[in-house]
Amino acid sequence: MEAGEEDISAAAANLRNDAHQQQQQPPVSSSNIISVDNNSVINLHSLTHLTDYLPHLQTHVNPLDSIPFFHPISGFYLSPTDVIFRNILFDLSLSAGSSGSATHHLQQLDAYHRAGPRKHIYFDHSHVRAAIVTCGGLCPGMNTVIRELVVGLWDLYGVRHIFGIKSGYRGFYSASTDPVPLCPNMVHDLHKRGGTVLETSRGGFDLHLIVNAIENRGYNQVYIIGGDGTMRGAVKIFEEIKRRKLKIAVAGIPKTVDNDVGVIDRSFGFQTAVEMAQEAISAAHVEAESAVNGVGLVKLMGRSTGHIALHATLSSRDVDCCLIPEIEFYLEGKGGLFEFLESRLKQNGHAVLVVAEGAGQNLIPRSKEAAEGQAGKDESGNAVLLDVGGWLKSELKKWWGRDHPEEELFTVKYIDPTYMIRAVAANATDNLYCTLLAHAAIHGAMAGYSGFVCGPINGNYGYIPVEEVAGANNVVDTNDHKWAWVRSVNNQPDFMRT
Amino acid sequence: MEAGEEDISAAAANLRNDAHQQQQQPPVSSSNIISVDNNSVINLHSLTHLTDYLPHLQTHVNPLDSIPFFHPISGFYLSPTDVIFRNILFDLSLSAGSSGSATHHLQQLDAYHRAGPRKHIYFDHSHVRAAIVTCGGLCPGMNTVIRELVVGLWDLYGVRHIFGIKSGYRGFYSASTDPVPLCPNMVHDLHKRGGTVLETSRGGFDLHLIVNAIENRGYNQVYIIGGDGTMRGAVKIFEEIKRRKLKIAVAGIPKTVDNDVGVIDRSFGFQTAVEMAQEAISAAHVEAESAVNGVGLVKLMGRSTGHIALHATLSSRDVDCCLIPEIEFYLEGKGGLFEFLESRLKQNGHAVLVVAEGAGQNLIPRSKEAAEGQAGKDESGNAVLLDVGGWLKSELKKWWGRDHPEEELFTVKYIDPTYMIRAVAANATDNLYCTLLAHAAIHGAMAGYSGFVCGPINGNYGYIPVEEVAGANNVVDTNDHKWAWVRSVNNQPDFMRT
Amino acid sequence: MEAGEEDISAAAANLRNDAHQQQQQPPVSSSNIISVDNNSVINLHSLTHLTDYLPHLQTHVNPLDSIPFFHPISGFYLSPTDVIFRNILFDLSLSAGSSGSATHHLQQLDAYHRAGPRKHIYFDHSHVRAAIVTCGGLCPGMNTVIRELVVGLWDLYGVRHIFGIKSGYRGFYSASTDPVPLCPNMVHDLHKRGGTVLETSRGGFDLHLIVNAIENRGYNQVYIIGGDGTMRGAVKIFEEIKRRKLKIAVAGIPKTVDNDVGVIDRSFGFQTAVEMAQEAISAAHVEAESAVNGVGLVKLMGRSTGHIALHATLSSRDVDCCLIPEIEFYLEGKGGLFEFLESRLKQNGHAVLVVAEGAGQNLIPRSKEAAEGQAGKDESGNAVLLDVGGWLKSELKKWWGRDHPEEELFTVKYIDPTYMIRAVAANATDNLYCTLLAHAAIHGAMAGYSGFVCGPINGNYGYIPVEEVAGANNVVDTNDHKWAWVRSVNNQPDFMRT
Amino acid sequence: MEAGEEDISAAAANLRNDAHQQQQQPPVSSSNIISVDNNSVINLHSLTHLTDYLPHLQTHVNPLDSIPFFHPISGFYLSPTDVIFRNILFDLSLSAGSSGSATHHLQQLDAYHRAGPRKHIYFDHSHVRAAIVTCGGLCPGMNTVIRELVVGLWDLYGVRHIFGIKSGYRGFYSASTDPVPLCPNMVHDLHKRGGTVLETSRGGFDLHLIVNAIENRGYNQVYIIGGDGTMRGAVKIFEEIKRRKLKIAVAGIPKTVDNDVGVIDRSFGFQTAVEMAQEAISAAHVEAESAVNGVGLVKLMGRSTGHIALHATLSSRDVDCCLIPEIEFYLEGKGGLFEFLESRLKQNGHAVLVVAEGAGQNLIPRSKEAAEGQAGKDESGNAVLLDVGGWLKSELKKWWGRDHPEEELFTVKYIDPTYMIRAVAANATDNLYCTLLAHAAIHGAMAGYSGFVCGPINGNYGYIPVEEVAGANNVVDTNDHKWAWVRSVNNQPDFMRT
Repeated sequence: MEAGEEDISAAAANLRNDAHQQQQQPPVSSSNIISVDNNSVINLHSLTHLTDYLPHLQTHVNPLDSIPFFHPISGFYLSPTDVIFRNILFDLSLSAGSSGSATHHLQQLDAYHRAGPRKHIYFDHSHVRAAIVTCGGLCPGMNTVIRELVVGLWDLYGVRHIFGIKSGYRGFYSASTDPVPLCPNMVHDLHKRGGTVLETSRGGFDLHLIVNAIENRGYNQVYIIGGDGTMRGAVKIFEEIKRRKLKIAVAGIPKTVDNDVGVIDRSFGFQTAVEMAQEAISAAHVEAESAVNGVGLVKLMGRSTGHIALHATLSSRDVDCCLIPEIEFYLEGKGGLFEFLESRLKQNGHAVLVVAEGAGQNLIPRSKEAAEGQAGKDESGNAVLLDVGGWLKSELKKWWGRDHPEEELFTVKYIDPTYMIRAVAANATDNLYCTLLAHAAIHGAMAGYSGFVCGPINGNYGYIPVEEVAGANNVVDTNDHKWAWVRSVNNQPDFMRT
Repeated sequence: MEAGEEDISAAAANLRNDAHQQQQQPPVSSSNIISVDNNSVINLHSLTHLTDYLPHLQTHVNPLDSIPFFHPISGFYLSPTDVIFRNILFDLSLSAGSSGSATHHLQQLDAYHRAGPRKHIYFDHSHVRAAIVTCGGLCPGMNTVIRELVVGLWDLYGVRHIFGIKSGYRGFYSASTDPVPLCPNMVHDLHKRGGTVLETSRGGFDLHLIVNAIENRGYNQVYIIGGDGTMRGAVKIFEEIKRRKLKIAVAGIPKTVDNDVGVIDRSFGFQTAVEMAQEAISAAHVEAESAVNGVGLVKLMGRSTGHIALHATLSSRDVDCCLIPEIEFYLEGKGGLFEFLESRLKQNGHAVLVVAEGAGQNLIPRSKEAAEGQAGKDESGNAVLLDVGGWLKSELKKWWGRDHPEEELFTVKYIDPTYMIRAVAANATDNLYCTLLAHAAIHGAMAGYSGFVCGPINGNYGYIPVEEVAGANNVVDTNDHKWAWVRSVNNQPDFMRT
Repeated sequence: MEAGEEDISAAAANLRNDAHQQQQQPPVSSSNIISVDNNSVINLHSLTHLTDYLPHLQTHVNPLDSIPFFHPISGFYLSPTDVIFRNILFDLSLSAGSSGSATHHLQQLDAYHRAGPRKHIYFDHSHVRAAIVTCGGLCPGMNTVIRELVVGLWDLYGVRHIFGIKSGYRGFYSASTDPVPLCPNMVHDLHKRGGTVLETSRGGFDLHLIVNAIENRGYNQVYIIGGDGTMRGAVKIFEEIKRRKLKIAVAGIPKTVDNDVGVIDRSFGFQTAVEMAQEAISAAHVEAESAVNGVGLVKLMGRSTGHIALHATLSSRDVDCCLIPEIEFYLEGKGGLFEFLESRLKQNGHAVLVVAEGAGQNLIPRSKEAAEGQAGKDESGNAVLLDVGGWLKSELKKWWGRDHPEEELFTVKYIDPTYMIRAVAANATDNLYCTLLAHAAIHGAMAGYSGFVCGPINGNYGYIPVEEVAGANNVVDTNDHKWAWVRSVNNQPDFMRT
Repeated sequence: MEAGEEDISAAAANLRNDAHQQQQQPPVSSSNIISVDNNSVINLHSLTHLTDYLPHLQTHVNPLDSIPFFHPISGFYLSPTDVIFRNILFDLSLSAGSSGSATHHLQQLDAYHRAGPRKHIYFDHSHVRAAIVTCGGLCPGMNTVIRELVVGLWDLYGVRHIFGIKSGYRGFYSASTDPVPLCPNMVHDLHKRGGTVLETSRGGFDLHLIVNAIENRGYNQVYIIGGDGTMRGAVKIFEEIKRRKLKIAVAGIPKTVDNDVGVIDRSFGFQTAVEMAQEAISAAHVEAESAVNGVGLVKLMGRSTGHIALHATLSSRDVDCCLIPEIEFYLEGKGGLFEFLESRLKQNGHAVLVVAEGAGQNLIPRSKEAAEGQAGKDESGNAVLLDVGGWLKSELKKWWGRDHPEEELFTVKYIDPTYMIRAVAANATDNLYCTLLAHAAIHGAMAGYSGFVCGPINGNYGYIPVEEVAGANNVVDTNDHKWAWVRSVNNQPDFMRT
């Protein structure tokens, strides 16, 4: 061990010890309060390390040190003390006065460990058996993540035992699907293809069958790609592995085309999805403007959040009104959607509406079964949403027929591009994102961390405790300046009855 | 004026006063050191405000307050005390000890004003005469910025006198081109078209002719879209306007497809350029792998920085070696490019090289004229680069012929996709970016700021003094962890002779 | 008049005379039987010419003769005797014997007038008032046709009075829409945009209001872009104009994204539609192969014909079964769809179905209203089709649940890309097609023909009597070798109960 | 043998006999003159059949008869008497008079055998050993042809021994490359990828080494994908095989992105190339219109023919002038390119030129070496062309500097998109084309034909003697009506000095 390394290693150990202690001391669970000076504290969201419950693990020098064509420069390896701050917006007037809460506020900086290679790792490459699984719905970039996990493990760390678990969580234990050995040749072109070669499914989570399978098959690195339901499963798997004191690193890669993951800047595939959504909006716009009193209506993904709808709206500039789950709207009366549409049709002869699938759920009449709560959940445990697109299309037609008896021409063209958005290959931006994401996960697992998720925080890749991401949710904050500002760009109604 | 507003306004004034004082006190020019407590300081990069030299300007309530369909919520308007922190990476071990320099380091946070609408503005909408000019080379998204400046001024602020200056800086004073009055109808579809409808040119900067023209034509808001040369011109225009004590806001919108602007996260059009660059790489890869000993060679934009080359390389994953201006390389001998290529051709039968246009300039033999410094600058004052693509293609052929006399088959397919990259319309990500950028510029000018540039800082839009951006440069930091890490992904040589 | 011209002109007159006579002599209506020798006849599908009912019209030299930069070469102008043969497939064995019917068959060659400029035209450019109208649903390329009609009339023939009729047939007489004067500047970029700038609508056909409006507004060239319903209207307009003996040329440009127009090779926009349909299929394929027992289901346009479905199926090669209106299919039992799907799912783990919207109409249970024939027709007079996509999706789920009680995983992803297919801009192939189509129509009208349609016949542009196209229909001939062969490529069931 | 079959078989034999005789009787080599009646003859371009030199070959029933899910309908199988007529344009006035040459003209109809499955084939599927080779430059669709040859042979005919010959003709005998066994799984996704997985090269033709290798490795079906040089090689291979009386079918699939193959309607990949070329033109147009006096210059493929340039010009409608090899042009003086450009720049402020690579070769000064004929041919034996794009760019700059000393702004943006055009995957239209092409080749080889090429003739797939295609060339016929007409669309100069 080189000079200097020791200190950092010690610091890391200290951090971990702190973390340990913190975990027994609510309310700052899984965090580290570090005093910088009298007034300042950094709230470090620290990670579980395998040595937390297996204190005597051997370390190895990172094989990146001996890759033929390049030489790790000083600063190449990160240490546990390298962190990213999450809070970057601040109101100076709050600290303008004197000490008080304002100063405090500034000083409580949330921090996360930076992602990247560590000088010392806790796995011997020849002993690694890695498992990769994809769960839930499709999202552009899944195949890129798979590809890069395989290529990164193989090329950079010399791992030769990498397995794809087929068809989601159930693939760990299902008798009908064997794990697929993966190698770079097999995944060579994957980043140019949509979907997931590992197949995916909802549900199938059985904690003990899964952990037993992991243990029995000798996997010691488990990479789980999935949404919030999947991440809640990952938390349980990680907890159970810890309980059994197994040397198995669990790394989560958050996947949600809706972009509703908390903490991280955005989820992979999101930019691609917005690009495709914009094409659907463009088609709706063409249909609308080529008709007399034409209305183009596009339903976009977004169960509880309107990110895709909002971003596609602002990218396309062809949208008159964008309805998202975070904002209640109403159809009739002053300030309602119909009044607004009336004015836009009069002005332009056509209009385009975008609606996120989770919007307006309280307005749609429930059928008897739905009201009784039957068939209310899908296999992932998500509530089955009522079809806001179909409902809106029908309400629009009723409205026109009722209020415009003279005007015979009115057209609603309804587009639901969901599967054409989800199933495409990732664009360049997302491919790069997925590549760095997969490498971040590998470096983290190799370094001995477990129960973490990786993702960009203010543009830098960091590690986040998986339970934090599993619990967080990233809705559009309608009380925020940004949303308000963005709404001004689109100049659409806010549906505040006045 | 509402309660509360006064304080902020006062704070703003204070900030500006500070800024004034700072400008006379090197070395912290154009910055504000604000003490938070004994140890902590925030280094606020403050802006010039028209009231700095015209103290008695009248304010107006922002007309966004009375737009029919929506209601500015609390928090919609920003104040001068709303800031973004720039530094977000930190090494905790530096503060682990005690006070010392480490604590100091943490506390010196660089901060910038947040972009967005202000409650009180310094222009009456009916008196605004806005001018928009585009300078330098093409970049995806220029037309979107133009469109959004027009639409934002017109729809949100009620401005009715908006003029496009044609063919760059010389359009301000040239007898042959009149300014074009612009309105939303004329720019309706611009965001779906590449290039700039205002035409652009290099050079033509004549400070006094330009400022005279601005003054004579009565423009009081000037939006300048251009690269670093253009921004250096903008600094001079802004200084001259200040010297003349004119009520004219100068706002810069940094445009560089190379992404070599400092401070901001990335420049507009960059993601689109990377996407297109990836397609060129993909073609080179297909050509290479369809030949025996095929080498695909792609030259990408990047005079002094390798951002496009690097991002496209990591997005495409088809590249064997990416050469950028920030890294010196060599062809012959151990660890050189030829040795590396030899090994890749042996392994895969083909290879793909990406080279940024500014790479390897020291290796290329200069012709007599170039050596004598004739024809060494273009109209923008940039050094004319030697053609690294053509040179490399020819060196590769020489090498093969020399070192492989037996092996008859060897092919180099050289692609220079520059104009096919620059001239496309912006993708969804960049269109959204350009939209928010234009609106940020408008809000800033309306709020009375001048001599500023806007752009995203860690994902949030902020205002930056134009001279800071004109002087900064955003090269790939090859001593940084990020570059080193990224290089590991690609597994390419680092050309350190050992 | 040059020597030689006279003869051709005379020949043309003879042809027209013949045509006249033929029109009174069923059963060879609107055709010309020309004896070549004792045994051979050419069945020329001749056109109505304005001089047929206005025999003393003056001719003018084509202004193409005096366009500055080029010089019509010999052969540039076509004459009425230039024809295209339609029948090009032949079975030699039928003539192998002796004379008989076989010889006869060979000799009865259907022929059409070639499209292109004529040396002498029947309109003075300064007197032309052209009207352009678009009717029915969208199709890629409509805007290109509009653009080229305007540009061709303006640039080549010097016409300065060109009007766009808005919102379909009703735009001729509707009080609420005025005709839009069109010029090249206005249509400059149209070929890069989907939809129709003239707006379109179904229905609104009122013969006398329309012809009165044409007469009153002084239009003497009427270009009608629309589907078979529209062409039936065009026949009536043309007949009424002839009855009134007006010097008005009526030219039809057949538009149908379904490609169900008879005689011509294919309709414009079709190749673009197939390209887009292939993308939808590709998404369905990705969804299917990323799931366990995943079925991708795509509904494509094609009311009475399966051309888009069939071409997209053969282009994509990802389709297991393609269902079209021309082939009856069944679900249950031996040789049925379910049995086939079962085998494909067993073999590949997934399957993709493509269904044309008009397929399987006899299998879908009709709701009460539909059965009573209410709401059975849309405004164009087309029968409202039952939703084969929704029905099939539901039947597939029922089948799986019923026949696979053990197997929990089964997914159907249903995509209806209709509006995303129709609304895009034409690709290069279709843009070229639309350009030549519009120019063909102009040359024909200028030459004094009326009541004709233009389109490619075996790759060459020709003129076809509009009533022939209005009556024809281009279904997939399932008894033909070509279809059978194509089916073999896809290796799908033919649903012949055996 | 079934009744009825005999007759057709006999007819086929007769046809072949005739063909044999014809081959000894110039000038109608390799054709069959069939009298229909006294005056009419059909000139059947007949094919060589293996039984021509191996008269006692056994036949087998086509295994398509027993594919599980479909049943060959009546008419599914074609016979040798099914033909396509090539000539479809006719001038009736030529036959209007009496008998003479006119009648004769009509009656001399060139005919080709239709492509498609035959009821009886000459190979037992278990004995087939098929070899596939690709030669020459890239073209969109090569991988699709390879895929479909493999899939068609495997799935429809049950062939299990299919080999890919790597790196062109030399791959047959080269010690360094072994043939690759191919199966459907390996080629599954090929149609979505550009280039050729078999790799390709120029040259390497050694007749005896190749035929020896074919014989020694036991290939009895050889599929050769390549351009006119390759087809001339295929003729020699076929002749040598015939001389050795081997039971080996040789099928050619003409590949040339330039579309310069004679007889067939167009070559595969051409539509895709035009689509991509249009994108390059679009970029050039954006660059030109975004500059002051901007000229966009695009060099497109086309050594001896201007098809791509011409089609892309007409598709894009952004081109002011298109220069092709078939038309001489000049720069200076009245009616020259500079005069024309001058007028367009004055009118529009910008202009776009497209130039085919083979255009203007007589105008470009030759360097000493080129003049001495050194380095004048590439490995395929094609003359090395002078760089018309670079030359034109430089001439344009000289002209402007010389003739416009006052006018400082002038820009030429030069784009050479060649490799970005060639290397893309085929679009839907071309994928369908390649699919049918490959299946046509398979059916022909299985039916015992040899020395043939397949391709669409007036929209129907036919078989053409390979020597006919190897000798033909498809230039743009500038004396033809079609070219003249097309030129009128673009309204560009014809460079006829007057």
